[in-house]
Amino acid sequence: MLKRTEYPAAIRNLIAQLRQMPGVGPRSAERIALWMVRARNGQPEQIARAIADTRRSIRACNLCGFFAASEICEICVDSSRATDLLCLVEQPTDILPLEKTGAFRGRYHSLGGKISPLDHVGPEDLRIKELLDRVDREKISEIIFALPADVEGEATTNYIVDLLKSKPVALTRIARGIPAGGGLESADELTLAAALSGRTKL
Amino acid sequence: MLKRTEYPAAIRNLIAQLRQMPGVGPRSAERIALWMVRARNGQPEQIARAIADTRRSIRACNLCGFFAASEICEICVDSSRATDLLCLVEQPTDILPLEKTGAFRGRYHSLGGKISPLDHVGPEDLRIKELLDRVDREKISEIIFALPADVEGEATTNYIVDLLKSKPVALTRIARGIPAGGGLESADELTLAAALSGRTKL
Repeated sequence: MLKRTEYPAAIRNLIAQLRQMPGVGPRSAERIALWMVRARNGQPEQIARAIADTRRSIRACNLCGFFAASEICEICVDSSRATDLLCLVEQPTDILPLEKTGAFRGRYHSLGGKISPLDHVGPEDLRIKELLDRVDREKISEIIFALPADVEGEATTNYIVDLLKSKPVALTRIARGIPAGGGLESADELTLAAALSGRTKL
Repeated sequence: MLKRTEYPAAIRNLIAQLRQMPGVGPRSAERIALWMVRARNGQPEQIARAIADTRRSIRACNLCGFFAASEICEICVDSSRATDLLCLVEQPTDILPLEKTGAFRGRYHSLGGKISPLDHVGPEDLRIKELLDRVDREKISEIIFALPADVEGEATTNYIVDLLKSKPVALTRIARGIPAGGGLESADELTLAAALSGRTKL
């Protein structure tokens, strides 16, 4: 049996590494690797440097958990923001979508996950203690819960509401209903039920 | 107007760099970048290292142009291969698909492109001189043309056939016809015409 011809080891390793990236399958990993091998300019080196730079310089904000280049993120240091209003999200990646609305000018707190016994994520794995500390220290008057509208998001909301109900802080939740542009025929029962019970006056 | 919140500069740069990769749009670049920021293991660093390693160690084989970790690639140094048989391809990436067939045990020569006046690629930009040198030096008895079946591939084939016709070397071309599993109804006219004129005896 003749030896099977393959790419040199460095390229095979590169393809295997690129496949670790989300949404990149074997075909695209090979395509990207061969592009990298053949690029005439320094773009692949720039990509490698950008990865290393990001890994070195980006950390979680000590306060809210958003991505930061120093101890505290740009949102938390922004003195033009309301300091007594917190929006509670599951992940730091949930913050920018909310920012893009321009409808919220308080600060955030990212839990880093949601309570999920099946995934072995308990309350002690989330940044709940940090939240309680902030409520006391920063004199928070309202916490807007913006956790996912699923079973684990509900459980996490209920758990935290229980911890906070003795404190002098208003607890609210973002509305549920039909999405903008969405017709009734494409909405599921739970969404429609939430939209009905959350109806507002015209 | 309030300042628009964005990711820290390192992440924005990473997203911009990742978008250079083929097949990676803005959404997947952002997804990959955030995965890299949040990975708990050293995978992003390993990817950066693999890119740098590949760029440093992989070159084009001096003989055939395939990817090599030293001056001559593994295919060209393989002494079990026929030394008088060359398969001419456009790109080094065309070589592995041919290898996978197991139907060819000679060596390759990659031109690095095809003649294309619209893209300002002329014969002098391709590895044609290297091919002529090899034909003389390596006593090649047959060259199998496996260039693309398009206008530029045709023009390139014709140009090289002209240069070689005075030399004692057989010039052949890989067959054109309907692909395996392909029905006649999905074949275009040019393919069907080629399949008819290239018919073989049963």
